[in-house]
Amino acid sequence: MTEPLFTIPLWADLLGVGLGGIQGAMFASGFQGQRRLDLLGVAIIGILIGMGGGLIRDLLLGQPPATLQNNWYLIAAGGAAIIGMLLAGLLNRANAVIVGLDAVVIGMFGAFGTSKALGLGVPAVPAVFIGACAAVGGSILRDVIMGLPVAIMHVGSLYAVAALLGCSVIVTVHAFGVSITIAGVIGLVVTAVIRVLAVIFDVSLPEQRRLYRRKVAAETGAIPIVKP
Amino acid sequence: MTEPLFTIPLWADLLGVGLGGIQGAMFASGFQGQRRLDLLGVAIIGILIGMGGGLIRDLLLGQPPATLQNNWYLIAAGGAAIIGMLLAGLLNRANAVIVGLDAVVIGMFGAFGTSKALGLGVPAVPAVFIGACAAVGGSILRDVIMGLPVAIMHVGSLYAVAALLGCSVIVTVHAFGVSITIAGVIGLVVTAVIRVLAVIFDVSLPEQRRLYRRKVAAETGAIPIVKP
Amino acid sequence: MTEPLFTIPLWADLLGVGLGGIQGAMFASGFQGQRRLDLLGVAIIGILIGMGGGLIRDLLLGQPPATLQNNWYLIAAGGAAIIGMLLAGLLNRANAVIVGLDAVVIGMFGAFGTSKALGLGVPAVPAVFIGACAAVGGSILRDVIMGLPVAIMHVGSLYAVAALLGCSVIVTVHAFGVSITIAGVIGLVVTAVIRVLAVIFDVSLPEQRRLYRRKVAAETGAIPIVKP
Repeated sequence: MTEPLFTIPLWADLLGVGLGGIQGAMFASGFQGQRRLDLLGVAIIGILIGMGGGLIRDLLLGQPPATLQNNWYLIAAGGAAIIGMLLAGLLNRANAVIVGLDAVVIGMFGAFGTSKALGLGVPAVPAVFIGACAAVGGSILRDVIMGLPVAIMHVGSLYAVAALLGCSVIVTVHAFGVSITIAGVIGLVVTAVIRVLAVIFDVSLPEQRRLYRRKVAAETGAIPIVKP
Repeated sequence: MTEPLFTIPLWADLLGVGLGGIQGAMFASGFQGQRRLDLLGVAIIGILIGMGGGLIRDLLLGQPPATLQNNWYLIAAGGAAIIGMLLAGLLNRANAVIVGLDAVVIGMFGAFGTSKALGLGVPAVPAVFIGACAAVGGSILRDVIMGLPVAIMHVGSLYAVAALLGCSVIVTVHAFGVSITIAGVIGLVVTAVIRVLAVIFDVSLPEQRRLYRRKVAAETGAIPIVKP
Repeated sequence: MTEPLFTIPLWADLLGVGLGGIQGAMFASGFQGQRRLDLLGVAIIGILIGMGGGLIRDLLLGQPPATLQNNWYLIAAGGAAIIGMLLAGLLNRANAVIVGLDAVVIGMFGAFGTSKALGLGVPAVPAVFIGACAAVGGSILRDVIMGLPVAIMHVGSLYAVAALLGCSVIVTVHAFGVSITIAGVIGLVVTAVIRVLAVIFDVSLPEQRRLYRRKVAAETGAIPIVKP
């Protein structure tokens, strides 16, 4: 009966799903040896990265998953996964492309998640949380299903933090009267820029008790950190 | 107000849950050493395989989980898990039984998933997707919770592909006017037969860039593939 | 239109979320070496333990997640995670505190889960199941996201069993006419007491075929159990 406050345009949503699908498939194509995936496995990771964030967002919002209401999302994610496989073959080890695509994708998923939450009347703090979960949820599902250590849990370049900051910006500027569409675009840019800069300058969060450990390490010799 | 287009009969749904529970518990009972499970662990895997696919289906459809609306699903899955433990003790290493049961179970879950989705008005592509997720979802949850590599992600006999083909058949023959019940039965049989034949003849999807790797392998000596 | 049969008071729900957040962050702070988490990782585990059980409960009930309907849950879980990090620094290796807190937390989550399910008209068996999933769900998510073996799946002190028994007591005494609030408190105490006693006396479920294995072990020499 009431008009929706905000709807993500279908083309924008499909663009995010498609870029995510390309990025996921490029990532998954890089694995060899015991983690090597067959063609279906690569397609599954592409679809998971393209659609996983939106699924998690809608589950957290108590809404039926938008990506399963029409045929286009799966066609976009699946087609994008095939493109991603071909690109991975062409641009072997194009790490910069994967990082750049990924920054845009988490920016889009975060912006769509927070915008949709605000549009449904969700308060500010959970709206930021849902946006961040939408941004990084696909990569968590990818790591769990591939048996990799979950990337966002370990010391590394600001990833979830970029999404949290971008989504917080959306909520803040929207509270000052900026339209949700413009707020979403600003948040997308903030997330993507922070993420790319963090990778370039190798910035990461302080580890817990790093100073304490450094002291111990200085007294006892270096702590060997086994790479997972 | 409108009558449901399709409901899975309770006896059929409970049969699927029960067969899944038996299959899951037989699978879980086979583990020894560090993966050994206690009795509750085996029961959890039985319930997960029996009910996990239906839970995932209903979450993707935005429906309250059907398996938690009455007492019978959990009783069937739990009782089946106990039967599965006993059978595993009797038929030690009855791999053929596990594979056969599994083929029927993924056929049933796929058919129920796609049929329910079509009955709720979900379009063709997501209906196939939801059916395939319902078919293999329980085994994904099982592998994640047991700390095993997720089976469907790695080079192996057609598993998810069998479910995708079976569910596609349901959507196709239903589009030609066949009743959803008959379409579901056809899809179940297609999935189960493909799966069993794939195991018997050891058919699998082509790996990514397999030809490229073979060439490299021929030039450099065999690439040692570490079994997970 | 109808009045809700039962609502968990906000203060009680926030108390559970907060205690869970403290417990989760204390647990996560203890990891070193390759499993070492950064500050965000510890906060994520705190929020996951504080809010994960409630999220799983609401997904299984087909309800929008209660913990995302206002700002307080995330503030409580996040604040509690910070307190948990500080406490972990102060009380290094305070295992007894973690076990005690954990026992109260699974008792609360189990009681809230079963009570909410009964209040929504869910039958007895799934109400117990949902309570147990709410009690242990956070720890399953924690283990999966941290790449640890899922604790409840392996031979150990009664954990899920304590929750199942506590939730069964709630359903039973409620069926005899005891109010749901009092039933919930009784169930909470039963779960927590069983859990603490199981840890103190090191009680666990019988392994599968333990006697068979003992016999084999006696005949063939000890089976080396590789610790995960």
